[in-house]
Amino acid sequence: MRVDVLTLFPEMFEGVFNSSILKKAKEAEKVSYGVTNFREYSDNKHQSVDDYPYGGGAGMVLKPQPIFDAVDDLQTKSGTKPKVILMCPQGERYTQKKAEELAKEEHLIFICGHYEGYDERIREHLATDEISIGDYVLTGGELGAMVVIDSVVRLLPGVLGSEASHVNDSFSTGLLEHPHYTRPADFRGMKVPATLTSGNHAHIDEWREKESLKRTLERRPDLLENYPLTDKQQKLLNDLQKNK
Amino acid sequence: MRVDVLTLFPEMFEGVFNSSILKKAKEAEKVSYGVTNFREYSDNKHQSVDDYPYGGGAGMVLKPQPIFDAVDDLQTKSGTKPKVILMCPQGERYTQKKAEELAKEEHLIFICGHYEGYDERIREHLATDEISIGDYVLTGGELGAMVVIDSVVRLLPGVLGSEASHVNDSFSTGLLEHPHYTRPADFRGMKVPATLTSGNHAHIDEWREKESLKRTLERRPDLLENYPLTDKQQKLLNDLQKNK
Repeated sequence: MRVDVLTLFPEMFEGVFNSSILKKAKEAEKVSYGVTNFREYSDNKHQSVDDYPYGGGAGMVLKPQPIFDAVDDLQTKSGTKPKVILMCPQGERYTQKKAEELAKEEHLIFICGHYEGYDERIREHLATDEISIGDYVLTGGELGAMVVIDSVVRLLPGVLGSEASHVNDSFSTGLLEHPHYTRPADFRGMKVPATLTSGNHAHIDEWREKESLKRTLERRPDLLENYPLTDKQQKLLNDLQKNK
Repeated sequence: MRVDVLTLFPEMFEGVFNSSILKKAKEAEKVSYGVTNFREYSDNKHQSVDDYPYGGGAGMVLKPQPIFDAVDDLQTKSGTKPKVILMCPQGERYTQKKAEELAKEEHLIFICGHYEGYDERIREHLATDEISIGDYVLTGGELGAMVVIDSVVRLLPGVLGSEASHVNDSFSTGLLEHPHYTRPADFRGMKVPATLTSGNHAHIDEWREKESLKRTLERRPDLLENYPLTDKQQKLLNDLQKNK
């Protein structure tokens, strides 16, 4: 997969693309990254990328020209038909399902605005997708792009080793994970539940299943609505709801 | 405000803390950042930070000792009563309201796990808050911590200049923003709506109000449920719904 980012703050990506899974994926040639400052594409002698909004009002608006030209250039060079993803608060709310869809693509181009609005023509005629990572206000699209890139690249075949297997991740199984404990069994007087140190694997499995359901019920009951509970899980859940 | 991050990948934060608003806020002494590799606090001769889970199973679990000791140390040094924020998929879903709450704090400590689960005692006895930025799987808590830090620091008094005023941000007003346009009026044959270049400010205001409602209705109808519509907005909305 090829990942390109258009941003006015390319230095933000340096540490992130050179750490952990994103770095490993690059070294294993599962992905390559490009970070482009779209200011370089401005055809204006001052290299400006924004301008006043038509109709007046506070704030500046990102001009169409530098961003259209940058995307055109990346697309011509790569010879691909990329997804062009606009990071913006008005976008589709990002989910794991969307990550799985994007992981099937050959080339992703992320457009990261900063402070300002995008000229609407970028949204209408250039972007194929608009993504928001959540209902909070960020200074720019850069952190959102990193979030999407991390969640997508880790799904590419061969990227995750067993140490980071995603089979048991929350949102992959549909329930929140049960609590984990490791040594020491007593840390500053805080003890590990006796079941987990009992060596009885049937009891341990049952404890984990129940705790996973309990946590999901307490924290994210919405996840249970569409979850295909087994008969045993339904019974555990009924017991939990009775004792609430 | 003081912001501390505990992570095994401190280099990820370098570019982000030294760009844009987070950099400006530091230079203006509205915030200071510390990034600590909690591996340095491991009392084990191999400096290990994780161990096998009690009860068996795949994956490793972050040990309580290094993280408890690192938080103790940061707290002793600062003399504050910090919020200790665990970034994790099971956490409270992050929202702008939470950003506003955190912006009132004196000291935030972020604990970023990576790949692995946290020992439950960290969750129960050390963390004051657990935050998830959304329903997608990330490799670690680092990107989530950056998202929370950016959204909080930009709310600190005196951080945002007028160029980045947050008054009109989506989620701050409760409706999605209307489309923006800037020069040229005709870009590759794509034209700016005539109303915006008309100079008639009453018409422009009306167009913007209508487009803002329209976009919210199309993309985020949930935001309208709790929004206190004016009579005029209600009428516009009724018209929009009729013509849908």
